[in-house]
Amino acid sequence: MNALNPADAALADRLRPQLEPASFREVAPRYLEEPRGAWHGQAGLVLAPGSTAEVSAILAAANDARVPVIPYGGGTGLVGGQVMPDGPAPLVLSMERMAAIREVSPRDNVMVAEAGAILADLHSAAEAHDRLFPLSIAAHGTARIGGNLATNAGGVNVLRYGNTRDLCLGIEAVLADGRVMNTLTRLRKDNTGYDLRNLLIGSEGTLGVITAAALKLFPRPARTGTALMVVPSPEAALDLLAHSRDIAGETISAFELIAGTGLDFLAETMPQVRRPFDPAPDWLVLVELGTGADQDPDALLETIFTAALEGGLVADGLIAQSRGQATEFWNLREMLPEANRLIGAVASHDVSLPMAVIPEFIARGRALGAEFGDLRLNCFGHLGDGNLHFNFFPPRGTAKATLAHLKAPVMRAVHDLVHEYRGSVSAEHGIGRLKVDDMRRYGDPVRLEMMYGIKQVFDPNGILNPGAVLPPR
Amino acid sequence: MNALNPADAALADRLRPQLEPASFREVAPRYLEEPRGAWHGQAGLVLAPGSTAEVSAILAAANDARVPVIPYGGGTGLVGGQVMPDGPAPLVLSMERMAAIREVSPRDNVMVAEAGAILADLHSAAEAHDRLFPLSIAAHGTARIGGNLATNAGGVNVLRYGNTRDLCLGIEAVLADGRVMNTLTRLRKDNTGYDLRNLLIGSEGTLGVITAAALKLFPRPARTGTALMVVPSPEAALDLLAHSRDIAGETISAFELIAGTGLDFLAETMPQVRRPFDPAPDWLVLVELGTGADQDPDALLETIFTAALEGGLVADGLIAQSRGQATEFWNLREMLPEANRLIGAVASHDVSLPMAVIPEFIARGRALGAEFGDLRLNCFGHLGDGNLHFNFFPPRGTAKATLAHLKAPVMRAVHDLVHEYRGSVSAEHGIGRLKVDDMRRYGDPVRLEMMYGIKQVFDPNGILNPGAVLPPR
Repeated sequence: MNALNPADAALADRLRPQLEPASFREVAPRYLEEPRGAWHGQAGLVLAPGSTAEVSAILAAANDARVPVIPYGGGTGLVGGQVMPDGPAPLVLSMERMAAIREVSPRDNVMVAEAGAILADLHSAAEAHDRLFPLSIAAHGTARIGGNLATNAGGVNVLRYGNTRDLCLGIEAVLADGRVMNTLTRLRKDNTGYDLRNLLIGSEGTLGVITAAALKLFPRPARTGTALMVVPSPEAALDLLAHSRDIAGETISAFELIAGTGLDFLAETMPQVRRPFDPAPDWLVLVELGTGADQDPDALLETIFTAALEGGLVADGLIAQSRGQATEFWNLREMLPEANRLIGAVASHDVSLPMAVIPEFIARGRALGAEFGDLRLNCFGHLGDGNLHFNFFPPRGTAKATLAHLKAPVMRAVHDLVHEYRGSVSAEHGIGRLKVDDMRRYGDPVRLEMMYGIKQVFDPNGILNPGAVLPPR
Repeated sequence: MNALNPADAALADRLRPQLEPASFREVAPRYLEEPRGAWHGQAGLVLAPGSTAEVSAILAAANDARVPVIPYGGGTGLVGGQVMPDGPAPLVLSMERMAAIREVSPRDNVMVAEAGAILADLHSAAEAHDRLFPLSIAAHGTARIGGNLATNAGGVNVLRYGNTRDLCLGIEAVLADGRVMNTLTRLRKDNTGYDLRNLLIGSEGTLGVITAAALKLFPRPARTGTALMVVPSPEAALDLLAHSRDIAGETISAFELIAGTGLDFLAETMPQVRRPFDPAPDWLVLVELGTGADQDPDALLETIFTAALEGGLVADGLIAQSRGQATEFWNLREMLPEANRLIGAVASHDVSLPMAVIPEFIARGRALGAEFGDLRLNCFGHLGDGNLHFNFFPPRGTAKATLAHLKAPVMRAVHDLVHEYRGSVSAEHGIGRLKVDDMRRYGDPVRLEMMYGIKQVFDPNGILNPGAVLPPR
């Protein structure tokens, strides 16, 4: 990496004539923290530009001065991509003031939003026009769409609607030297040259700063149905997914695997939460269908359940009888990360695998945890996408702090196993700073060489999010 | 561009020890022609490697010798990307011998195919496992998946299933210097670094040669329904699309606009084809629904039609009463390009537009044709994607040859109009050699600079498909 300089008063002074006063922010703690507490960031300057022109001015100045820039969205990322813990104090570029939803066009099924728009606000804006913006993650009240795009966020609706990249038609982005790349197309089809939109999406702020995006909208399903089904094993859960697809096809919006351990954690940390099955079964699946007005999702769920019961794929189940009960089912799923946080993980993993190997992977992965002591496994995730959150916790009564030395070896062992099955060590959270070393260990070396070459083209001075995604050469 | 050398006997001799004898092909005319006859290619050598290792050996040798390489699939591209009409005689790299379907996994909904596999064979392979591979273009019997990927082919099912890039999970590709980039993942989610898959997809063989791909499969719709509906105007067709979506949601697999001119051309060139409406109405729409077993697509079409009739959105219509009749409807649509070819276009355009401006664009575009003499417009296409094929033909009785001088000015005028409406001058066919100048005229200049930079990283000697996609600097 080239030598970089800290963001200092001289840079601020240089930018003052070009920026509105409101663009200068205090270096507040929230810009320096990340949800899992693994890193503590630093900042010489926090700027929150109010326009693309301001972003351009800031990057041009930072590039001239060789000052590192950390693009900052909602700060909800789980791999440390939003904090720079060492090196020269960076300029934190917060998109919080560029939060406008520029346009919602229900006829075109397109919405144009600035990068700082909060995901939940995009949901509301779409709903106000009787449309669905399907990106759904637990952090929807805080996460900003620019960060979702930069990390290609996943979530519970990927099965039906795709990742964030699949929901984006065009972007406006500012490059490291301040040039604005305007490809904010709202077209469904555009085959004029290389796909730079997808190159920037998922690049975690290392190739440019996305300032606005044209996003796809969808019809809102006229009716939804939600069920919890008890399955005897992950194998059965996979068979249930295939069986559900035969019956309900593309109306399946979510198919989430939940381990009984997760429900135990909920009981332990949030006893007020009502548990649908007591004692907790080993494995549950949460299924949601969204259909047209001419279909009855509950009847489809009933059909799925009845045949699955006969075939031994499910042992028990509940179909939500009201919107309230459906919300209760979803709350169980959405509280799992918080329960995990309260229990305190030794090591967390966000992995994806070819569908067929998932049961074998879970069995072997669980055995790995046993090798490192009596670690408790909580495995849950987006089974329809082959994406598991595979997290190990201390034995009951053991404090997380006493097992901190296990984090690195457990992660290594789990990721090695994932790699053996040709899976991904980052399914939806990205690389950030947490998994930088994995790029070399598990990634294709030729691909990594090409990534370095592309980084050099987009950010020759290496000012954009240094230390993230790309391992040191 | 760097100085390049012709593919000659010395290069062939150098490669002979590394390749099977079957990899050496005759320089047959089919490698030098393209469907619209606008260019005639040349070749110093035609090689059809039998393996990725052979592709690697060929590219390494060509790169060393600075010999241009034209990757060649089915040869069905419409923008001249597959022929190099001038400069040093290239090496034509035909993927025809790498046509294996390596694996079909219905449980994972994944198929892994080599680049030379013919699209129709992929359809059959998927069907044999009760799955759908939805990429559907008229040239499916000839086009090869490597070419479909290189050009990000579109077709009639994009509305529901996306472009070719949306159907691809991973690729294996050989770079200009022979290095193999293996990202042949079959994972639905993988956020480990930059998206190089999408960078190569749609790069028209200028960044690397795709040798294999993991492709998404889908459940086959249990039931399909097909209808032709007469609409009074393009505006009404758009309203009918929105109305159909309200009723049938995501079950709409295709929504094709057909101008009466197209049916007139059919009557003129293929009088044996049965016409469903006589005289031809000004505008027709072909709608196809694919539903689950619990839905009745014909009843949905009936509901759509009845309400649309009351609202004045349709004037007449036919719902196919048999598979045979549905095929007959589709034949009408699929014969349009052949009828066009027989009539002989003055200028053809493959454009996309924001939905809302389509009626206005069609009216103004038609007026443009009038300015250039009494040109006949045949406008048809994938209305659901905003993609129009907007083609001008000589007045009845005038030979195409006498109007050849109009081709360039008509294209310019139509593309200028598309650009004014923020549309794309290449919706699904790509840039090839036909639209290279448009990259500078209509494209974002910053984006083009980044494309040059990426080209330099992937192909520093400029051997891959020189002259395609990127205008000379």
